[in-house]
Amino acid sequence: MKLVTFDDGRPGRLDGDTVVELDCASTREYFERNGEVEETGRRIALSDVKLRAPIVPKKFFHTAGNFTEHHTELQAVQWSHPVHKGIVFFQNVDAIIGPDEAIVYPEGLTKELDYELELAIVIGKSGKFFGPEEAESYIAGYTVFNDITARDIQRREMQSGVFSFSKSIDTFCPIGPWIVTTDEIPDPQKLAMRLSVNGDVRQQGNTAQMVISIPHLVAYHSAQGYSAGDIITTGTISGVAAVQPDPFQFYLRPGDRIEAEIEGVGVLRNHVVPWSAAHDTPPYSTDLYSSTVG
Amino acid sequence: MKLVTFDDGRPGRLDGDTVVELDCASTREYFERNGEVEETGRRIALSDVKLRAPIVPKKFFHTAGNFTEHHTELQAVQWSHPVHKGIVFFQNVDAIIGPDEAIVYPEGLTKELDYELELAIVIGKSGKFFGPEEAESYIAGYTVFNDITARDIQRREMQSGVFSFSKSIDTFCPIGPWIVTTDEIPDPQKLAMRLSVNGDVRQQGNTAQMVISIPHLVAYHSAQGYSAGDIITTGTISGVAAVQPDPFQFYLRPGDRIEAEIEGVGVLRNHVVPWSAAHDTPPYSTDLYSSTVG
Repeated sequence: MKLVTFDDGRPGRLDGDTVVELDCASTREYFERNGEVEETGRRIALSDVKLRAPIVPKKFFHTAGNFTEHHTELQAVQWSHPVHKGIVFFQNVDAIIGPDEAIVYPEGLTKELDYELELAIVIGKSGKFFGPEEAESYIAGYTVFNDITARDIQRREMQSGVFSFSKSIDTFCPIGPWIVTTDEIPDPQKLAMRLSVNGDVRQQGNTAQMVISIPHLVAYHSAQGYSAGDIITTGTISGVAAVQPDPFQFYLRPGDRIEAEIEGVGVLRNHVVPWSAAHDTPPYSTDLYSSTVG
Repeated sequence: MKLVTFDDGRPGRLDGDTVVELDCASTREYFERNGEVEETGRRIALSDVKLRAPIVPKKFFHTAGNFTEHHTELQAVQWSHPVHKGIVFFQNVDAIIGPDEAIVYPEGLTKELDYELELAIVIGKSGKFFGPEEAESYIAGYTVFNDITARDIQRREMQSGVFSFSKSIDTFCPIGPWIVTTDEIPDPQKLAMRLSVNGDVRQQGNTAQMVISIPHLVAYHSAQGYSAGDIITTGTISGVAAVQPDPFQFYLRPGDRIEAEIEGVGVLRNHVVPWSAAHDTPPYSTDLYSSTVG
């Protein structure tokens, strides 16, 4: 099944090219009610709705460093931190956007806007402190995540032992186009991944290359507790702009169109717009990063 | 005004020693409705209710490094990262507990459980990309936050350029005892702070010592967007266990009772219980941290 959110936030499921509206407040409530949700009877052509982010979870676990190639290429360009297995932080749930929505370039904050294709897992029920053997029963489905990152901010943040702001700016969290339930994904560790910018393929890999398998990842983070509908990401593959010989040829620019695709899950399309396309004010900037404490 | 959440999650305000129930679903909804909420007419003695965490926000911005003394003493014990102004990550909203609730010691995950007293700001309305001069209008009130931290996990995380898991384990986020609205706090940069463990004072300071003032902090993070009811913390003061000559004499143990107090805001009391007091299973552990990627 493909679960969608459409128009003003209505939940539905796809039946071919038709959206079948579900009788609950949101896809998150759909999972909270364990999928025991009726249909409203309303059916609309997919082409007649505006798809939104398929879910706004209570928590968005953002994991990192799960593909060796991506880590190796980062090291090659002096992103020199050791990457411990299972590193995690929380993504900003207010930065989530859906398919075909615009990533707004915050020109006053960054000059190094990058992309990162990731498979995102949707958790189907609440729970905590469980092991890998139980993890499968917590996984409800998958969606595509494009982890938009301001690399210049990230470098500064990592010097302080964190990174979060660089990935959490308004509109930096595209997900979608829908949630594909596990019954349609026979083996989630065998999915081709590909991201292109303006038609040029930039990232290409496969979920088979993960260092930590999905059940181990989901189990490990259960010490932080899950709510139904939570998202947990699985790390990106090689090919981000930051690792290119001349990254500034590859960083995102206003006007760029990104296609983020995972086999069997779907294609998430987003485009980059300049600050001025979304705001009447000059590009937001701050001088807080100009010095260190103490 | 003091806003509380009580019993099974009902919102209310204090009238002396009486809880006056409010006619909305939660304190978060109270802020979403801009405080335009009626009373239900139900009044209960404060001593007859069980106070809960005063709010569960959509987002819990956790800032760090805002007190020079705390940073200096961390450096003295080889927490050697430079601390850039404005570092931030998101706290786990599912780890929130309220006053007098138990912090469950995860004995399988850490041997270095620490405390950190912080003033937490409650954001009253949604907004993004605003400056310090506008920040005051976004601040609705304050509460006390005790940032429970597993130092051994934090050290490993910081090597990878993040920290989150170490502060996000189940029950690691006590807040309360209530939200004090801004009208009762004439100057939030002039509040005495004190944390004691079993009656021994461990941390003592004043919000006057912040490096970044509250309006600058709130404005800076607005690039990530606020929802009504969001929380943003302001950093801890000197005196955490990790910086003591023999930290293991100071780390928290099952049975410890913590009082976290901020002048004019309130006293947040929590106690530490062993894993076995909350779980029927052996202490949860994992071997994911045993190696690095690549």
